[in-house]
Amino acid sequence: MRSIFALFILVAAFNVFGADKADMPQENDPLAKQIIQIEKSALERWNNGDPSGYIEILSKDVTGFSPALDRRLDGLEGATKLLESARGKIHVDKYEMLYPNVQAGKDMAVLTYNLVCIVGERTDRWDCTIVYRLESDGRWKIIHAHRSLTKPNLK
Amino acid sequence: MRSIFALFILVAAFNVFGADKADMPQENDPLAKQIIQIEKSALERWNNGDPSGYIEILSKDVTGFSPALDRRLDGLEGATKLLESARGKIHVDKYEMLYPNVQAGKDMAVLTYNLVCIVGERTDRWDCTIVYRLESDGRWKIIHAHRSLTKPNLK
Repeated sequence: MRSIFALFILVAAFNVFGADKADMPQENDPLAKQIIQIEKSALERWNNGDPSGYIEILSKDVTGFSPALDRRLDGLEGATKLLESARGKIHVDKYEMLYPNVQAGKDMAVLTYNLVCIVGERTDRWDCTIVYRLESDGRWKIIHAHRSLTKPNLK
Repeated sequence: MRSIFALFILVAAFNVFGADKADMPQENDPLAKQIIQIEKSALERWNNGDPSGYIEILSKDVTGFSPALDRRLDGLEGATKLLESARGKIHVDKYEMLYPNVQAGKDMAVLTYNLVCIVGERTDRWDCTIVYRLESDGRWKIIHAHRSLTKPNLK
């Protein structure tokens, strides 16, 4: 068990979360508020079976990782097909976007959060990284999304 | 099984990879080459038990997700402790950085790749998202890292 994953398990015991900063909402940062609101709007539509909120804000060169894929997904066409295939099939009873945090540059921003989704008696927990870029038309669009299960229960 | 995860499993059958672009190395893009080289240098030291390559390029406000953590890790101090705890404990026999891709703005860039790590008879596969920002001293540093297992084998 000298694998990297074994190491990650080992070091998890350190519990080194710097929660102070992350728990402070970025209320005085207009860009952070804007990015979080864009994400929440798309996420809430997604949670009600409508993927169009996300599809409308994907950039042409979008890339993504999800736990069901063998490798990175590249490009708008593939991402759109993937999201469209979910239309009408999702219904999340309740969600929480925990510790949303935006780290921004001049024309890019990375939003990260922990997501809790409750569907009936099931609770799924996700680690979410969404990278936005300011496009030439003045809109923020997603250029990369990485969603993975928080602390997955592995075989 | 109307959960989001079930949906991701369902749509995996679509196999919508846009591999053409991703398989083209960004050889004519100096910034992409630079970012990939920074990452490879740190990764190769990590693979030989030395976390300093990564520690030296973490920004103050670095955040990260890994499969062993209950939530996002925030801040340089916690990230440094986590990486230091691995010192001398990792030895990867062989690795492959597959499909490295850089999407850049004016002062930020997101590097994504699939990582294969071989340790003895074990092979681990990772989805990797590393977000870099150009700091005021002219160096590119990591502001966010998200590593998760590719298509994890869940219980």
